[in-house]
Amino acid sequence: MASWTFETSLKWQGGERALESAPHRPDLNVSGPPEFGGPDGQWTPEHLMLASIEACLLMTAMYFITKGKIGLTSYESATKGILEKTANGLRYTSIQIGIRAVVAAEADRAALQKAVESAEKYCPMSAAVNVPLRVTVDAVVG
Amino acid sequence: MASWTFETSLKWQGGERALESAPHRPDLNVSGPPEFGGPDGQWTPEHLMLASIEACLLMTAMYFITKGKIGLTSYESATKGILEKTANGLRYTSIQIGIRAVVAAEADRAALQKAVESAEKYCPMSAAVNVPLRVTVDAVVG
Repeated sequence: MASWTFETSLKWQGGERALESAPHRPDLNVSGPPEFGGPDGQWTPEHLMLASIEACLLMTAMYFITKGKIGLTSYESATKGILEKTANGLRYTSIQIGIRAVVAAEADRAALQKAVESAEKYCPMSAAVNVPLRVTVDAVVG
Repeated sequence: MASWTFETSLKWQGGERALESAPHRPDLNVSGPPEFGGPDGQWTPEHLMLASIEACLLMTAMYFITKGKIGLTSYESATKGILEKTANGLRYTSIQIGIRAVVAAEADRAALQKAVESAEKYCPMSAAVNVPLRVTVDAVVG
């Protein structure tokens, strides 16, 4: 079975701070979020999880967009994750991704919707999480 | 029930590239990995997922380390995620996190091991994924 290995590493910087590294990539300062006592201004595990899923959805959609020759002019998404205090500790209980896109022609609107639905199914990061995910697409012709 | 909302947003930059943003944080260039046709040198959804879990494990462990007054001198981790081609598409099938730490005294070694085990249980990001996770701790007194 074909497989690929991805690697990251972390160095603790004291308190709630750490440096994240990955081969060939710029280092990234991370911390716990201010909501839980960390400093402000740094990427947090909570944000990285949402960014991972949101970016994976685009990358996977791009496969179907390219394959389907969908006329895509612009694509943005806004993602919200709700973290709740449960009996088992803090848990993400829902993640919502709202996509706003501009497409070239009317037919591309439905095609983009389908591409995103396929991406939701095949994106390895949305598949890796057990959190209910809601994805909406708002595409206009422009 | 207490809850917190975390937000990120994404702007497509053409091809397999995007800009990830989160309020108060520096923008982050992301792309698909070179393994799947993306450019090199940028954070990818695959790496962000590992970084999220690895950093969450540290942040959650820090809660138990502080509470237990464990003498921690240094803490690093190296994380590997195996992505495999399955019948349902690409999937992370295992994630391994290897922690190397230096502690102040012999008693801190077992205490750190316990703190990490608690972190594994309570870290919201490891709890959010359905991928088998293996965490090992190699702590020395220094």
